[in-house]
Amino acid sequence: MRRIKMCLAYDGTNYAGWQVQAGQGRVETVQGTVEKALALITKEEGIRVVGAGRTDAGVHARGQVIHFDTQSRIPINRFPAALNSVLPPDIRFYEAEEVSGDFHAQYWAKEKTYRYTLDRSPVPDVFLRNYACHVPYELDVATMKEAAQYLIGTHDFRSFCAAGSSVKTFVRTIKEIHLSETGSLIYVNITADGFLYNMIRIIVGTLLEIGRGKMPPGYITKLIAARDRSLAGPTAPAKGLCLENVVY
Amino acid sequence: MRRIKMCLAYDGTNYAGWQVQAGQGRVETVQGTVEKALALITKEEGIRVVGAGRTDAGVHARGQVIHFDTQSRIPINRFPAALNSVLPPDIRFYEAEEVSGDFHAQYWAKEKTYRYTLDRSPVPDVFLRNYACHVPYELDVATMKEAAQYLIGTHDFRSFCAAGSSVKTFVRTIKEIHLSETGSLIYVNITADGFLYNMIRIIVGTLLEIGRGKMPPGYITKLIAARDRSLAGPTAPAKGLCLENVVY
Repeated sequence: MRRIKMCLAYDGTNYAGWQVQAGQGRVETVQGTVEKALALITKEEGIRVVGAGRTDAGVHARGQVIHFDTQSRIPINRFPAALNSVLPPDIRFYEAEEVSGDFHAQYWAKEKTYRYTLDRSPVPDVFLRNYACHVPYELDVATMKEAAQYLIGTHDFRSFCAAGSSVKTFVRTIKEIHLSETGSLIYVNITADGFLYNMIRIIVGTLLEIGRGKMPPGYITKLIAARDRSLAGPTAPAKGLCLENVVY
Repeated sequence: MRRIKMCLAYDGTNYAGWQVQAGQGRVETVQGTVEKALALITKEEGIRVVGAGRTDAGVHARGQVIHFDTQSRIPINRFPAALNSVLPPDIRFYEAEEVSGDFHAQYWAKEKTYRYTLDRSPVPDVFLRNYACHVPYELDVATMKEAAQYLIGTHDFRSFCAAGSSVKTFVRTIKEIHLSETGSLIYVNITADGFLYNMIRIIVGTLLEIGRGKMPPGYITKLIAARDRSLAGPTAPAKGLCLENVVY
């Protein structure tokens, strides 16, 4: 048995998220589509892939990482092209590596970087309609940048976690958060050792409230202390989010 | 009667081109979709719109310009939002202006700029799969830039016109052609007083042949003189092309 680690990009627009859900028989997920492609190229049944990040419906990836086990003898460097030849064009593998049997795409991830894209054009950019959140209103980006700095570090991020989430701990470490402007776009890049459910989308929703002047930048500190989701901003739309990179 | 000039952007992926074709009853075109939207907001029947560039199926626009006549009293600055409210999200108007009754979006156009995007990534960028032509092979961009310079000026471009085209003259003036590289992408920007049918896609297809070393850059000069489509390169795919700007 070989354990294979692979990197892929996907446009999440037409998928019900990464993860195969019990009972969602007919809904296409990225994981399900990849597993079907693996079955086709390896002629093996029941290969299960584990992804580093379980992206939601509509969320994209440029740097998702997976692992799976197979008995196939396909040479390792042939895996990306073999999978791409049977996958739809909105999923593309670009790297494969044979790893030790204890490697785990999710548990071994030391840090992940996501990017959230905001489109400030007066009229939404048609080419970004599935890849950015349109924010036609005035935003004080300097204030948003200041607020973002208060998120850096190791905190209990319960206020930034979708209600009803069952995890052992809400403590995560945000290593970097960087807002940059390019033309009409604002990119919010966030690197952390891990993320709670909807954490980035709630962070972005809160930064937008601050950028509109509804809360001062220092509100972030109070919000972290409060551990109360209801005090944070709304969850920003999925389509602006993209998993950029995973570090092991 | 008012004559209105408007600017729009569209993602051409899901349309059978700009122009309403006789007998193509059920196929959605951008023109047809815009005319339906105009009928909805003006409650007027039979408004016909004229576009500056009749883009092919799969070709995109950031700066298409149209004109139409209407008796509607909708204030001019309300037109973009009114149309956007009834249009699908892959068509977006962003400018409207009342013009004199003799203005003509196509005939009055002094120059148009198109951009063609080439994706040189080893694996196609999933986010550009509908907006770029994937060219995974080696390209000598310096040679392509040299070849492009021979196209500038007033020439008979019959060699770069799809066969069977019926036009009065094949003479056009290319004012500027500029190749630029950004990451894995090459942009080919071309400005001319007008374009023949498939002209840019044949130019790009020929530049690719030159970039791969199949012909020397000076071949362009011979090709222009030959006035023979069969001697030029293949027609590059529609999806890489975008109408950027029209100057009046």
